[in-house]
Amino acid sequence: MRKEIFLTGITTTGTPHLGNYVGAIRPCIEASRSANTTGFFFLADYHSLIKCQDPSRIRRSTREVAAAWLALGLDPERTIFYRQSDIPEIPELTWILTCLTAKGLMNRAHAYKAAVSENRTAGKKDPDKGITMGLFNYPILMAADILMFNAHKVPVGHDQVQHLEMTRDIAKRFNHIYGEQFVLPEAVINTNASVLLGLDGRKMSKSYDNTIPLFAPEKKLRKLIMKIKTNSLGPRDPKDPDNCTLFGIYQAFADADEIKTMRRRYAEGISWGVMKQELFEYLNTILAQPRQHFEELTSAPDHIETVLQNGAAKAREHSSAFLQKIRQSVGIQAVS
Amino acid sequence: MRKEIFLTGITTTGTPHLGNYVGAIRPCIEASRSANTTGFFFLADYHSLIKCQDPSRIRRSTREVAAAWLALGLDPERTIFYRQSDIPEIPELTWILTCLTAKGLMNRAHAYKAAVSENRTAGKKDPDKGITMGLFNYPILMAADILMFNAHKVPVGHDQVQHLEMTRDIAKRFNHIYGEQFVLPEAVINTNASVLLGLDGRKMSKSYDNTIPLFAPEKKLRKLIMKIKTNSLGPRDPKDPDNCTLFGIYQAFADADEIKTMRRRYAEGISWGVMKQELFEYLNTILAQPRQHFEELTSAPDHIETVLQNGAAKAREHSSAFLQKIRQSVGIQAVS
Repeated sequence: MRKEIFLTGITTTGTPHLGNYVGAIRPCIEASRSANTTGFFFLADYHSLIKCQDPSRIRRSTREVAAAWLALGLDPERTIFYRQSDIPEIPELTWILTCLTAKGLMNRAHAYKAAVSENRTAGKKDPDKGITMGLFNYPILMAADILMFNAHKVPVGHDQVQHLEMTRDIAKRFNHIYGEQFVLPEAVINTNASVLLGLDGRKMSKSYDNTIPLFAPEKKLRKLIMKIKTNSLGPRDPKDPDNCTLFGIYQAFADADEIKTMRRRYAEGISWGVMKQELFEYLNTILAQPRQHFEELTSAPDHIETVLQNGAAKAREHSSAFLQKIRQSVGIQAVS
Repeated sequence: MRKEIFLTGITTTGTPHLGNYVGAIRPCIEASRSANTTGFFFLADYHSLIKCQDPSRIRRSTREVAAAWLALGLDPERTIFYRQSDIPEIPELTWILTCLTAKGLMNRAHAYKAAVSENRTAGKKDPDKGITMGLFNYPILMAADILMFNAHKVPVGHDQVQHLEMTRDIAKRFNHIYGEQFVLPEAVINTNASVLLGLDGRKMSKSYDNTIPLFAPEKKLRKLIMKIKTNSLGPRDPKDPDNCTLFGIYQAFADADEIKTMRRRYAEGISWGVMKQELFEYLNTILAQPRQHFEELTSAPDHIETVLQNGAAKAREHSSAFLQKIRQSVGIQAVS
C-alpha cells in the first residue's frame, strides 16, 4: 500500500516556543509515527527571506528549529527532514508554476490583501507601499513546496486554508494544460484546541512578542510564567479554566485525569500564584530532558547539518526525478 | 585586464528569421570576437514558458535557435553559450531577488502595463484578465539572468530599457541591504538601423507572422521575397530606398559600395520585380553556406546538446560559486 504523504514547513525566523510545539511540532511528530504516513518536514528558509532581512537571525533560527524538532523526538530515519534551500528543484518548480498562475489569483490572497488593507487604513497613497514581490508570490512558492513531493495532507491554520486552495488551483491548471502530474493536496485544519495563548492573552506568536521559548533555562521559564496576564480574582474565588491562559497551557500537556483534577481546583478557587508555580513545575519536569538534548544538539551543529544533508538526499531522490518529468511536460529537455 | 561581460538571451519560441540575425545574432557574434569581451549568450527557455504552453514548439525552437547561432559563426570555444534551464542557480537567485523587489516596481513595468491597457481597451471587467504571474515577474527573472553573471553590457531594444533599469534597481537594493555583490549592468541600446521590416512592412517579428526564416529552402525564400509588400510605383519611376522594406533588407547585408550603387538604381527607377529577384539572389548566395551548416547541425542534435552542456559547465563554474556567496549574504548556509 502506498503511504500517505504528510508535509509541513517551519519558517526559520524565530526561536521555537510552546505554541509552535503544541500547534505544529507535536502533531507532526505524532503523525510521523503512523505506519501509513511518510512525514516531509522542512525548514522553510526561502520563506523566511520574505519577512526577514537579518542573515544572522535566519542562521540562528535554522539551527534552533532543527535542534528543537530533533530534541522533541522527531526520528530523522522514519521521516524526510530537510532544509528547503537544499532542494534546488523547488525554486525551479516555483518558476514553472509562476508561468501558469493567474495574477488575479494572487491579487485575492489573504496575506497580500491584509497588507494592502493595512496601507489603506494608515492612509498610504500607494496601497502596495512596502509590499515585496516575495509576499505577493508566496502562495506559488508554497504550492511548489507541496506539489514537488505530491503531498496528500498539509496541516494548516485557518489563515492558510485559502493558500492551500490556491495550490490545488495551480495543480489543476498544470494537470489540465500539460497532463496529470500533480496530486491535489488536502488541508488538515488545526482546531482551536491546539492554539496556545501567550503572555498577554493573545495567540502565542513571535509577531506579538508574547512567547514562552520551549528551551528557556529554568529560571527564565519560571519568570515568564509568572508574567502571564491573569484577571483580578482573589484566592478562593472560583475561576473559569476555559478562559485562562494558564489552564490552556496546562491542558495542552496534561492527561485527562490531570485536567479533570485541575478543573476541580479552579472551581475551588486555586490562587493565581499557586497555579503559576504548579504550571512552572509541571512544564519544567516535562521539558527538562528535551532541553538538555536541545543544548547538546546546538553545541554540535555538525551533527544537525549531517541530519539535514541526509534528509535532503532522501528528498532529492524524489524531487530530482520528478522535476525531470515536469520539465519534459513543459518542453524543457535535451535537444533531440 | 578583466574582460567585459556582454550578455544576451534568445527566447526559444520561434524559428530564427532575418530580423533576429540582423538585430541580435550578428551584433552578438561580432561583439564576441573582440579580445576585451566575454560573450554570455543563452537560450531563454524559462522565459519562453511565459508566452508558450506548447512543449513541442519550445523543443523545436530550442534546437533551431541553437543551430542557427552555430551555423552563423558563433564560436562556442570563445563564448559561453548555454541554455538557461541548465543553470539551476538562476531560478534560485530569482527567488532571492523576488524577496527584495518592491511590488510597486513591477506594477510599473511596461510589458505588464501594456497588457492591462489592452484589457481596459477591450472593456474587460478585470484589468488583470489573462495575465499570468510569469508576465508580472518576468523583470525579476531577467534581473537574475543578468546579475548571476555580473554582466556589464546588455544589448536591448527600446522596449527593454526600462526592464534593465529595474535590474539595476534590484541590484542596488541587494547591495544596500546585504553588501556589495552585484555589478550594475548597462544597456546597449539597439539603434533603429538594425531593425528589419517584414513581409507586410511592419517590424519583422514572429508576433506579426511576417518573418523571413533565415534558413528557408531556396524556393521558399524566393516565394517570401516576392510576397514583400511594395507601393504601386511602376518601372522607371524613381523610388525612395529609405522607406522600402526591400532596400532595408538589402542594406543590412550589403557593403558601402553595393549600397551606393543600389541607391542610384532606385533613383533611376529599378522595377520592384527586378529588385525582388536581385534581393533573392543576393541573400541566397550569402545564406547558402550557413543554411547547409544549419541543416547538418539540426540533423545531429547530439552535437548541439554537447555544445550546450559544455557551455552550461563553463557558466556554472561561475554561477555555482557566486550563488554560494549570495546565499551566505542572505543567511542561507550550513548550520554552524
